[in-house]
Amino acid sequence: VLGKCLGSQGENTAMDNVATERRAEESHRQDSANLLIFIMLLTLTILTIWLFKHRRFRFLHETGLAMIYGLLVGVILRFGVHVPRNMNNVTMNCSVNASPATLLVNVSGRFYEYTLKGEVSTVKGHDVQDDEMLRKVTFDPEVFFNILLPPIIFHAGYSLKRRHFFRNLGSILAYAFMGTVISSFVIGLVMYGCVTLMKAVGQLGGDFFFTDCLFFGAIVSATDPVTVLAIFNELKVDVDLYALMFGESVLNDAVAIVLSSSIGAYQPAGDNSHTFDATAMIKSFGVFLGVFSGSLALGVATGVMTALISFCFTKLRDFPLLETALFFLMSWSTFLLAEACEMTGVVAVLFCGMTQAHYTFNNLSPDSQDRTKQLFELLNFLAENFIFSYMGLTLFSFQSHVFNPLFIIGAFIAVFLGRAANIYPLSFLLNLGRKNKIGSNFQHVMMFAGLRGAMTFALSIRDTATYARQMMFSTTLLIVFFTVWVCGGGTTPIYCGCTVMVLQKSHAHFYVFEQVTVSDGTQHRNTKHESAWPFRIWYNFDNTYLKPLLTHSGPPLTATLPACCGPLARCLTSTQAYENEGHQHNDDSDELVLNDGNATMYGDVTVSTDASGTLTTNHKHLSASTMGITSEEALDQELAFGEHELVIRGTRLVLSVLYQDPTEYNAILYYEPFSVNCNIH
Amino acid sequence: VLGKCLGSQGENTAMDNVATERRAEESHRQDSANLLIFIMLLTLTILTIWLFKHRRFRFLHETGLAMIYGLLVGVILRFGVHVPRNMNNVTMNCSVNASPATLLVNVSGRFYEYTLKGEVSTVKGHDVQDDEMLRKVTFDPEVFFNILLPPIIFHAGYSLKRRHFFRNLGSILAYAFMGTVISSFVIGLVMYGCVTLMKAVGQLGGDFFFTDCLFFGAIVSATDPVTVLAIFNELKVDVDLYALMFGESVLNDAVAIVLSSSIGAYQPAGDNSHTFDATAMIKSFGVFLGVFSGSLALGVATGVMTALISFCFTKLRDFPLLETALFFLMSWSTFLLAEACEMTGVVAVLFCGMTQAHYTFNNLSPDSQDRTKQLFELLNFLAENFIFSYMGLTLFSFQSHVFNPLFIIGAFIAVFLGRAANIYPLSFLLNLGRKNKIGSNFQHVMMFAGLRGAMTFALSIRDTATYARQMMFSTTLLIVFFTVWVCGGGTTPIYCGCTVMVLQKSHAHFYVFEQVTVSDGTQHRNTKHESAWPFRIWYNFDNTYLKPLLTHSGPPLTATLPACCGPLARCLTSTQAYENEGHQHNDDSDELVLNDGNATMYGDVTVSTDASGTLTTNHKHLSASTMGITSEEALDQELAFGEHELVIRGTRLVLSVLYQDPTEYNAILYYEPFSVNCNIH
Repeated sequence: VLGKCLGSQGENTAMDNVATERRAEESHRQDSANLLIFIMLLTLTILTIWLFKHRRFRFLHETGLAMIYGLLVGVILRFGVHVPRNMNNVTMNCSVNASPATLLVNVSGRFYEYTLKGEVSTVKGHDVQDDEMLRKVTFDPEVFFNILLPPIIFHAGYSLKRRHFFRNLGSILAYAFMGTVISSFVIGLVMYGCVTLMKAVGQLGGDFFFTDCLFFGAIVSATDPVTVLAIFNELKVDVDLYALMFGESVLNDAVAIVLSSSIGAYQPAGDNSHTFDATAMIKSFGVFLGVFSGSLALGVATGVMTALISFCFTKLRDFPLLETALFFLMSWSTFLLAEACEMTGVVAVLFCGMTQAHYTFNNLSPDSQDRTKQLFELLNFLAENFIFSYMGLTLFSFQSHVFNPLFIIGAFIAVFLGRAANIYPLSFLLNLGRKNKIGSNFQHVMMFAGLRGAMTFALSIRDTATYARQMMFSTTLLIVFFTVWVCGGGTTPIYCGCTVMVLQKSHAHFYVFEQVTVSDGTQHRNTKHESAWPFRIWYNFDNTYLKPLLTHSGPPLTATLPACCGPLARCLTSTQAYENEGHQHNDDSDELVLNDGNATMYGDVTVSTDASGTLTTNHKHLSASTMGITSEEALDQELAFGEHELVIRGTRLVLSVLYQDPTEYNAILYYEPFSVNCNIH
Repeated sequence: VLGKCLGSQGENTAMDNVATERRAEESHRQDSANLLIFIMLLTLTILTIWLFKHRRFRFLHETGLAMIYGLLVGVILRFGVHVPRNMNNVTMNCSVNASPATLLVNVSGRFYEYTLKGEVSTVKGHDVQDDEMLRKVTFDPEVFFNILLPPIIFHAGYSLKRRHFFRNLGSILAYAFMGTVISSFVIGLVMYGCVTLMKAVGQLGGDFFFTDCLFFGAIVSATDPVTVLAIFNELKVDVDLYALMFGESVLNDAVAIVLSSSIGAYQPAGDNSHTFDATAMIKSFGVFLGVFSGSLALGVATGVMTALISFCFTKLRDFPLLETALFFLMSWSTFLLAEACEMTGVVAVLFCGMTQAHYTFNNLSPDSQDRTKQLFELLNFLAENFIFSYMGLTLFSFQSHVFNPLFIIGAFIAVFLGRAANIYPLSFLLNLGRKNKIGSNFQHVMMFAGLRGAMTFALSIRDTATYARQMMFSTTLLIVFFTVWVCGGGTTPIYCGCTVMVLQKSHAHFYVFEQVTVSDGTQHRNTKHESAWPFRIWYNFDNTYLKPLLTHSGPPLTATLPACCGPLARCLTSTQAYENEGHQHNDDSDELVLNDGNATMYGDVTVSTDASGTLTTNHKHLSASTMGITSEEALDQELAFGEHELVIRGTRLVLSVLYQDPTEYNAILYYEPFSVNCNIH
């Protein structure tokens, strides 16, 4: 493809160079100013979040707040600012057949390299040179996938409550895989009906195929771990519900992203490219499986490699900076590796995060453990608020919105139906096999808390070239706004209503007295959670082979391997593992599987209530409060890094029984400085 | 400027879209792979750094190591990898007179936006489509200024040892401003001689004006705080030498960057654009002063604003995550604001860092103090190693190198002369006014340790369009390599030689007995450092008005303001300040000015040596060792954040006297686990 054009020869003078330089400077100045707008937006959001937290105003979540600020700035940019038309753009009408990724322009003998930024829409008779300002604040959609989503998803994986996650893995996988597929197809079908209706009424302004409907179903089926994590973390909900919801919404995203790309890959042979074709469908399914398992394998592989590096280079612990940098770089390289191998980086990063938390985390020095947690917490916070404020802004700055009332109403109904078809039938089926049933209250909460967020947005903004995609994008934006503002803000009262009601009825005593049994400083937890046999097998395998091989916290291999492997085991076991042998059962991994009435389970947590209702918690780990953190943060941290959830649950439930008024209960949860005394055993 | 070309109309089919998409994907895959190369390079560097630290191998600094790895990868990419020629580039020979920043290409009725990436060199008969791979791994030079340099420079400002910095401010400013200007002009003149010689011999292949010589002088006059900080931090040198060197090299960078841009702005009127013109020169000087003071003011302003926010929103301390995010965003916005105002972002960031350290740091919660330190430490570490490994890579990947032996030899001589003309005369003049003379040994060390690093590289790679700039770039690269490998590696033995020699002669007793005086658990430091009167005035102003206004750590305003301002003072003073009133002299700010034999100075540090040579250090701050950090790290941290340097110096010097063999002395410094017992008073 080589287009040659005729034209007059320009002169190559120094003045040209100066002019070019000045234009580049001007463009840079403009970029800085635009980025500054976002930074100021984030700063404002942070101050307002703080104000909300401080004033105990909890009806709007921080992500909702970020969106509102984004909206305001969008309105100002759209209607308030009139930038003089920038004449630096040159329009070339050329004979190129396609738009290449890079373009070399021969300007009078000197070659300049240009990179493709995207197509500029010319819808509605807009002059292409109009709205320079709005086009400038529009980011390349790939920024979301390559810069903003990875830290969010990694953080989700890294902070997954492993114990409860694995205990509920069966249900989580069912919801995430089957549920997302069901939801996608239900939404796809409803939308197809809607689109057919629109075509009949004459409301459709362009093509909208069945594959587009399915694609729409896939992107709006991704529930957001960001908002779920944030809301549930603040609510301090029941850990099992939390693990189910969070695990589902995290894996959900991974499934939705791969599903949508497989639907995009569905291309039947022949002329009519939008009919059913079994071969193409099987191929799409193959793509789905291949990409998902490939990304999973890559993520786990780099996670294991990091664990091995930090396991072998033991003395790296003496240099927390190097350790943290290594951890960060290895996690980032997972993403790049996956993208370079044509896998899905975001999915790889998720599983990498989970592997890092399960193995590498145990090998890090305490200092690095704190550093990595705080680093990813910060990155997650910034990226999350950036995405949500950009979402608000884009409602006004995006120039090709297609708002179709019929489509929007249809989409809201479809999303509702899709979520219902995911949660209720699956819960019913799962309850047949679970000893610890998923109550109908829990199901309602799951139904209602299925917010759509960053992933849905990123998937829908990725491609807005066609009419169908533009309509999808506009509708998706509205769905996200609705779910975050209405459902996100509403989950608090709904949840409180449900659970407190439940507590005041039959379950209250069950929870409080069964789970928080005080007996001479040692607690025997008699939780009734079963563990399915595949996970018992996995747990045993993990504890016997993987943990000792990859971390310093397991039992030595010499103790777990059969005698014939003695020499091999000895050379693979670190001296630290031997030291751990005596007290290795202190490790949190042992809490992974709780069998019924398991007397061998080791309780490392003591909870006692004295007469005044003050709670005393004793556990073996160096408590957060000795590091100068407030008790509320200590609770937050424990909730976030899943070591003593049971205690906290006990605490919360005892409190909720003591103060049965839901409003007061809420207030106590967040603001009553109840003392948690932590001592080292 | 509207170029219209004639050509055949291409067809806009769906296949085109698919092809475009696939090319974009391919380009993204390639980008990921390239970034992965760098991430792997950094990972390797980290592991090797650790190995070096662990094996006590100290002849090569980590930045030198990063360069070596970069070189290796560059060689592999240059000679080892043969990527099939990428035919996706379209060469358009068009009638545009200039190369605009953005280009709208009309491909059969659809507009695509392209952004200028840069000029592609066509030197040496290279086909422009050749070396796709090498061109791909070449970053936009602006990446250095906009992404990599800011965290490095901010960290330098944030970790400046304030007490010693302010005490030596006069000398530092003299070296930084006068020294850099002297050095630039000396180098410029020598190079002009060299270029004239080359022209006479017929070795010059293009234009090289006097302004180019001066520009070269400015860019190679910037000594690197990165390497200075790293090397001196590890050597644990004398704090005054450290403060002088570090302060000089930090401000140096700021001066050099503004100086080079002012030289770039020198454009005499008339046809002959390279003659002397007084008006243009005065204008350039005005630009220098304006940009420098403007950037300084912006940096200080945002720093003060952050301090005010964290001062007013006191309860923000309860949310370290919000606090850290705010701190990060405000610091970043300094950079963007300065760039948007056409100031120099890097300079603004430097002064912002210093202001944050001086005021905001005191308002942060202890948790946030740690978090911000660790965050910027990590960012600095990653950016620094990235730049140095890229430097190594670019020696082979850059395609327009002009290595001219005469020019290179001339440049090395010029750099040497320039540095000498900076250090020796200025030191002589400064010694006339200083009570604490800069010894000739110190001068030799300053002369020798003036490494060129990231800033020099970034300035020289920024513009490589002309022959003169290409030759400068190639030569600069060699200068950086030489100084980092030879001087950087050599500073250790030279410095040890100098100081240990000095110690063994007359000064040893002076240091040990004057500075480490043990008297019943309290130490009276009788250091002989004078403070010049401008800084006493500044100190008093700062302590009386600014600290109380901006931080919680000063005395209350009601105590420092005159009585007539009582009501104003009362409403500006926080309750915390009153609480501080009793013990506010514990704050490190009081150590800012040490007057001769000042009996009111408060010693918050106790150093005692017992018979066995074990050192006991008592100070008031919660010690790092209680947080589970090794004593070596604790020392590192204290050195890096400048609160108790004097103690450490005492410690080191006592040790160095105890073990007079330099080799053993080195080993003891880093690896002898001498106990530092820290108790809270």
